[in-house]
Amino acid sequence: LARMADTLRLAVIPGDGIGQEVTVEALKVLAAVLDGSGHRVETTEYDLGARLYHRTGETLPDSVLEEVRGHDAILLGAIGDPSVPSGVLERGLLLKLRFALDHYVNLRPSKLFPGVPTPLADPGEIDFVVVREGTEGPYVGNGGAVRVGTPHEIATEVSVNTAFGVERVVRDGFARAAARPRKKLTLVHKHNVLVHAGHLWRRTVEAVAAEFPDVAVDYLHVDAATIFLVTDPSRFDVIVTDNLFGDILTDLAAAVTGGIGLAASGNVNPDRTTPSMFEPVHGTAPDIAGQQIADPTAAVLSVALLLDHLGLGDAAARVDAAVTADLARRAAGEVGARPTAAVGDALAAAVVA
Amino acid sequence: LARMADTLRLAVIPGDGIGQEVTVEALKVLAAVLDGSGHRVETTEYDLGARLYHRTGETLPDSVLEEVRGHDAILLGAIGDPSVPSGVLERGLLLKLRFALDHYVNLRPSKLFPGVPTPLADPGEIDFVVVREGTEGPYVGNGGAVRVGTPHEIATEVSVNTAFGVERVVRDGFARAAARPRKKLTLVHKHNVLVHAGHLWRRTVEAVAAEFPDVAVDYLHVDAATIFLVTDPSRFDVIVTDNLFGDILTDLAAAVTGGIGLAASGNVNPDRTTPSMFEPVHGTAPDIAGQQIADPTAAVLSVALLLDHLGLGDAAARVDAAVTADLARRAAGEVGARPTAAVGDALAAAVVA
Ligand SMILES: CC(C)[C@H](C(=O)O)[C@@H](O)C(=O)O
Ligand SMILES: CC(C)[C@H](C(=O)O)[C@@H](O)C(=O)O
Repeated sequence: LARMADTLRLAVIPGDGIGQEVTVEALKVLAAVLDGSGHRVETTEYDLGARLYHRTGETLPDSVLEEVRGHDAILLGAIGDPSVPSGVLERGLLLKLRFALDHYVNLRPSKLFPGVPTPLADPGEIDFVVVREGTEGPYVGNGGAVRVGTPHEIATEVSVNTAFGVERVVRDGFARAAARPRKKLTLVHKHNVLVHAGHLWRRTVEAVAAEFPDVAVDYLHVDAATIFLVTDPSRFDVIVTDNLFGDILTDLAAAVTGGIGLAASGNVNPDRTTPSMFEPVHGTAPDIAGQQIADPTAAVLSVALLLDHLGLGDAAARVDAAVTADLARRAAGEVGARPTAAVGDALAAAVVA
Repeated sequence: LARMADTLRLAVIPGDGIGQEVTVEALKVLAAVLDGSGHRVETTEYDLGARLYHRTGETLPDSVLEEVRGHDAILLGAIGDPSVPSGVLERGLLLKLRFALDHYVNLRPSKLFPGVPTPLADPGEIDFVVVREGTEGPYVGNGGAVRVGTPHEIATEVSVNTAFGVERVVRDGFARAAARPRKKLTLVHKHNVLVHAGHLWRRTVEAVAAEFPDVAVDYLHVDAATIFLVTDPSRFDVIVTDNLFGDILTDLAAAVTGGIGLAASGNVNPDRTTPSMFEPVHGTAPDIAGQQIADPTAAVLSVALLLDHLGLGDAAARVDAAVTADLARRAAGEVGARPTAAVGDALAAAVVA
């Protein structure tokens, strides 16, 4: 998987709710941007999510996981439905994919595109990336409960952090910071309370920093980081943080950069021993699903991350440029509310080389 | 401690950094508002924090904790200093007080006072209160590390949640919601990932809701809650949440309501078997300490919470009104930057009955 062959074998998991609709548009744009490039896309679609669960009780059959593993990359729409008990699809499908495929870098860029409305009065320039750890922390599923449903119930959740796991994601964060013009890395944690995990993160950042003398290093407690995300988001360049803090910070970051409808993500295995998975940050939005009113932009931007990961930087840049132009047209009032497919059509037309 | 006697025995812990300066002003306002009320304040000051730690290596001697326990309430400035290893004062003093005195309700109102600048372009009316659990969750200090400093280090943090602990804080949240005009309670957690702890919280809210049929109940994942705090903060009335999520949400809430300089908090034991503790949400701000430029408003508003807790609602309302008026004068440009003591003087003059 070091570099993409002529044929990109893509596993597609549209999932639930608006995941279905936005994935169609993302694939449309992917096909368009690769048209004439000599690269072709071969997709295998996997019908995972609420429907499969209701039909069979399964979330991610082992055989499907093994098939998915044989692909070059995965495109995912969104997972989750109110008809399924909370946690079943999240833990049994989405997180299972991230963990089984060792997606230890959950990459979430936050950029305020020109003209995009933001809830902030004075946003300044916002362009940072969160490198969220993806395979450890409070997400490991190492919790339990006893005496459930009694007045003596005890429920625990264990955050597991290893030197191995922290170091590899911290090193990835530094490498990304070193490759960016501002070369700044901010560690976000809560080491004054979560002293064991926090100090492991802190010591690791200090140690890896020695390998990246050009990168300026900064630290914020997670509570303070949320303040700066609304008062001075320009201060951030690369944020490296754990799985749960990263979940929280990236939704907030999406909100200040125009909303979850524009936020893309990559669940990346930088070692390329498994396919990486690209998905919008947004959820399944069951309230608007099936109505062709969801904005597919986040899914399309996830395709840009996918192309970048596969070494097709030019194609990724064309997708980014098409989105930037489309958002500018919205800001200028040149286009109004469009069906999901119309946004996809416009972007697909715009990315052609 | 059910109701305040004529003499309020107040333990005062100014702490570190600007904690020292803001506490002086808070006490000034407290004395002024009770002047002529028949209530008098008897303060015992405890010099805890970085200085004690450097002198003796102690953070909270048992004998001091026992003395503090004998008071009606505690006023705290702020704790923490860069000269002390991270976590030592936080865990050994601040959290030790909260845990030892069973402050299970960490009460944090968020209100956008008229005229106060906010980073939000269109804030709307903001007036909610976060009921943050104070004695459980990831804050219990139930973590550890093995093979520290080696490539095989493992560090864990355990979030402990009990039916007993969750139920009492949830019930407090419902009681507060029932007493407010909008009567709405939002549970914030992450039960799709932290399934054991999250489902305990969720089931508890469902069960207690039956006792409060007038209160509308809502649920948000913590990541989504951060989005609404910047896109639609008016939707919140009472938020009930765990210790760590509450820490994060209340700093963000402070940011959108004019900053951490205005955010007050109470560490409350509603059972009144121990003294409750009132403190500004802000930290010690070592960079501006000792310069008389810190805003004492958050400490003064913490005094209002203290008075309310002691059943002196009228006095509390006078403090609130004085702060509201002072903030309006700032907004109108009638007062500029003033030394910390001048703000305290102005508020003290304004609260006199
Ligand atoms: C759906 C949920 C399990 C997931 C997460 O918490 O990681 C989502 O919020 C995200 O950020 O991708
Ligand atoms: C100083 C720190 C331990 C504390 C906390 O995390 O509770 C602070 O952030 C707060 O919110 O009071």
